[in-house]
Amino acid sequence: MNNHHPSPLEESRRGYKPNLPQMLRAFDKFSFKARNQTTALGDLEEIEKQFPKTYGRPLLFGEQVSGQSLSKPLKVGVVFSGGQAPGGHNVITGLFDALKAFHHESQLFGFLGGPKGIVDGDYSALSEDQLALFRNQGGFDLLGSGRTKIETPEQFAKSLKTIEKLGLDGLVIIGGDDSNTNAALLAEYCLDKGNSVSVVGVPKTIDGDLKNTYVETTFGFDSACKTYAEMIGNLMRDARSAKKYTHFVRLMGRSASHIALECALLTHPNVTLIGEEIEQKKQTIQEITEEIATVLEKRKGDYGVVVIPEGIIEFIPEMKTLIGELNHLLVDESQDNDDQAKIKRVISALSAESQKTFTFLPKEIQAQLLLDRDPHGNVQVSHIATEQLFSQTVKAELKRRGYSGSFSPVHHFFGYEGRACLPTNFDATYSSALGMVAALLIRESHTGYMSSVRHVTRPVEEWEVAGIPITSLMNIEVRKGKRKAVIRKTLVDLEGEAFKTFERNRESWKLEDRYRYPGPVQFEGSDAITNQVPMSLL
Amino acid sequence: MNNHHPSPLEESRRGYKPNLPQMLRAFDKFSFKARNQTTALGDLEEIEKQFPKTYGRPLLFGEQVSGQSLSKPLKVGVVFSGGQAPGGHNVITGLFDALKAFHHESQLFGFLGGPKGIVDGDYSALSEDQLALFRNQGGFDLLGSGRTKIETPEQFAKSLKTIEKLGLDGLVIIGGDDSNTNAALLAEYCLDKGNSVSVVGVPKTIDGDLKNTYVETTFGFDSACKTYAEMIGNLMRDARSAKKYTHFVRLMGRSASHIALECALLTHPNVTLIGEEIEQKKQTIQEITEEIATVLEKRKGDYGVVVIPEGIIEFIPEMKTLIGELNHLLVDESQDNDDQAKIKRVISALSAESQKTFTFLPKEIQAQLLLDRDPHGNVQVSHIATEQLFSQTVKAELKRRGYSGSFSPVHHFFGYEGRACLPTNFDATYSSALGMVAALLIRESHTGYMSSVRHVTRPVEEWEVAGIPITSLMNIEVRKGKRKAVIRKTLVDLEGEAFKTFERNRESWKLEDRYRYPGPVQFEGSDAITNQVPMSLL
Repeated sequence: MNNHHPSPLEESRRGYKPNLPQMLRAFDKFSFKARNQTTALGDLEEIEKQFPKTYGRPLLFGEQVSGQSLSKPLKVGVVFSGGQAPGGHNVITGLFDALKAFHHESQLFGFLGGPKGIVDGDYSALSEDQLALFRNQGGFDLLGSGRTKIETPEQFAKSLKTIEKLGLDGLVIIGGDDSNTNAALLAEYCLDKGNSVSVVGVPKTIDGDLKNTYVETTFGFDSACKTYAEMIGNLMRDARSAKKYTHFVRLMGRSASHIALECALLTHPNVTLIGEEIEQKKQTIQEITEEIATVLEKRKGDYGVVVIPEGIIEFIPEMKTLIGELNHLLVDESQDNDDQAKIKRVISALSAESQKTFTFLPKEIQAQLLLDRDPHGNVQVSHIATEQLFSQTVKAELKRRGYSGSFSPVHHFFGYEGRACLPTNFDATYSSALGMVAALLIRESHTGYMSSVRHVTRPVEEWEVAGIPITSLMNIEVRKGKRKAVIRKTLVDLEGEAFKTFERNRESWKLEDRYRYPGPVQFEGSDAITNQVPMSLL
Repeated sequence: MNNHHPSPLEESRRGYKPNLPQMLRAFDKFSFKARNQTTALGDLEEIEKQFPKTYGRPLLFGEQVSGQSLSKPLKVGVVFSGGQAPGGHNVITGLFDALKAFHHESQLFGFLGGPKGIVDGDYSALSEDQLALFRNQGGFDLLGSGRTKIETPEQFAKSLKTIEKLGLDGLVIIGGDDSNTNAALLAEYCLDKGNSVSVVGVPKTIDGDLKNTYVETTFGFDSACKTYAEMIGNLMRDARSAKKYTHFVRLMGRSASHIALECALLTHPNVTLIGEEIEQKKQTIQEITEEIATVLEKRKGDYGVVVIPEGIIEFIPEMKTLIGELNHLLVDESQDNDDQAKIKRVISALSAESQKTFTFLPKEIQAQLLLDRDPHGNVQVSHIATEQLFSQTVKAELKRRGYSGSFSPVHHFFGYEGRACLPTNFDATYSSALGMVAALLIRESHTGYMSSVRHVTRPVEEWEVAGIPITSLMNIEVRKGKRKAVIRKTLVDLEGEAFKTFERNRESWKLEDRYRYPGPVQFEGSDAITNQVPMSLL
């Protein structure tokens, strides 16, 4: 598993000891105090009905107390769910360190390959020696990950069987909104079957779309954004030097535009599209295209940088309509003899509005919409190369306007580069603390909770810890035609300070070169600016 | 020019003071000593004929002497030529610092927008205040750059006029092989016209293809490779965590494969193609495809990382032949009514061997070869998305073999991200020293020389400095049908230690995950591994 050659930085990061909140420095002086029963974000009755045993539990706030007795040895399982986020390994080392501090005979089991590992009982007992290699490292390779959801009655039963077989006191699920919803369902299921295992969720995702009053940010968001910002800054310096390329940069992080907004604040691109704003203003592709073209035309510099969030398509009303119609029309392909026949049939069956939208799109994107679909026949929205889409519509628009300058677009997609990078000092610290809080929730036998570390814009010492009933973050949404209790995704708040700051400044970013070059993430010395929190939180 | 918002790292880097070779710490104790007259790399007589006044000059080695008198105030011009390379601004600050140390009334003029600035007399007098903002920064934005070559008699005459008007004692051309050839031509021209301005070249290019005994590396190579390696390492960690993607990474840096080799040594990908080796072994696309497919098949892990140099196409004999034929056939398009007609005509006119090669290529690449051409009608070799080419041929090959695993390729091109990044400590130091050596060559009135700093694998204090007659690096090559004296590009040496190290280790990199994650470049503290020199030099 570890036969690779560590780089000097990898080795030195293994030795990094994240600073700890005051509250987590002496576990024997720690206890949670319950305050305020909770409800849910909406559809209270329906959610209560789905979670009769775990609904409405109180918020828990960490407190320093005197003379808290240490617990017996605990057996805990942990799993990664979904895409990589920097800091994941630190959640596990934080969890491990706390469990061992509680009692040296505590045991931590890692489920392999994601939630499937729980269902199949595929796990590995984790040791200090093994974890030493993963401290402050990127990736999820200690355990691997997966996207299996524990959904069917059989999967729940098998998961419980694994929990019983190992005699687990706790199970920590490290994941995004859906995985935390899954944690709540499993907590409820186990209680219902008479097993009081503490199922605890840890908020992970580079996308940053799982946040609320108590979960200020997800781990991984800071590291991913700073890695993308390093690259965007480099492109800006190159653009300003060469004065001949316009860079169209698409950034991972669907659906919300948090990553694009954070990177905009870090680098000041000439144009940054924010999906939530586009939806609010009901903008069309034509309008967005005109806006970008106007900026480039006015700049007259033959260069520029445009940032586009991966999820943009779903925020453009006319595209949403078009894709909805396409998904419907493409379900039954049996009637088409070949691609040409299909294209003809589908286009003629579109509504007038969607036909107009479709016709405006570049040919490559049209083909992609019709031919690249997932196993259910749906258009693969995340595959759409929006950086190419807009560079082509902008090109046509500039031509239409008789633009006399040159326009040489260069396309980029930054995604995988940022998902498994070394965690910044912020993410390393935040993740470790989240892991420790998960251990503390288990020690006090709380289930269906999410681990929370708060006030992260303050110095680390002053961070506070809490436990949030997962059901309190839920509402009912229709998924695949069914009403489901799910954690509500948090979109960019157009009234929030982060967006307002962006809005206040973007006019000057459009025409002047107010580019900001963050450079590579630093871990030590006066340049270890990565102790700073994400800009959007300030 | 500087209305942007500096990031904390940008500001802190402005204050970085590169260490200096002992020899460059006291300019009043420095002198060059001439040793060994030089010739050229080949075609001696022809080159001597083209450079009657500058041919055969001696190598110059820096020495510490006692009582060297300081010179009078010097007037020097400087220009960036060609693509960005990290460290460029430090060449200028090194040059400036040395000139001011010689005499506080010395003046430095920066030509704007590349060599065109010399021809047109477009320049800016550089001040300490202005330069302070660019110390240890990436990009070429202080002056901009350009690809104009000073070629025509009129251009030479106008350049000389600018030199005379400013009364320049020296002119420093910061560029790659072609730009340094240009420096030699300008030196010869000026001498011939009775002006003894010292024209000095500084070896720049991220590609690393300008090196020899005296020029051990070009500035920018180290920074660009470390930035690409950071990203490749991140992809590796992600690949090993997700276990479902095969990343095909194309790296900038044509034609030679130096960047790919350096990045391979830094990260240990499963497969790295080296153009020079492919040419030596006369490999076909089919053979390369089979090799990659075999590695992926044996890995059985459904993931992997394949690194491909930008210039690979030109090293594959059958592709070279095909492109040659296409360039010939595509010159006269008047006979074709449309694209379809053209494709039909061209394919039928290809040789049997080229038809076979062409047929093996994926459809998108076929279209690109036929339709995407430069203003002279030539195939745009550097535009060919070889990462897509090979992922598609490999996909077909795996299918042919009945491979039962999954194969999900993800494509990347890393280029512009690395051209204008912050220079590593190595590049910052090396570039500053090169700028100082240029100033010293001018102080002693040497012309047609390239600035050289040697023994860079030793501690900085022990680096030695030299001046190399540019003509000594030349041979005759046929360019656009004409015999021209040019600096010979340095390809990867298949007998050299860097390639041998790669060759010795790559078998284990293929099947085992010996990935190395270099992480982001560090500038301070115990992690400032960037003081290290490029791996290929060790």
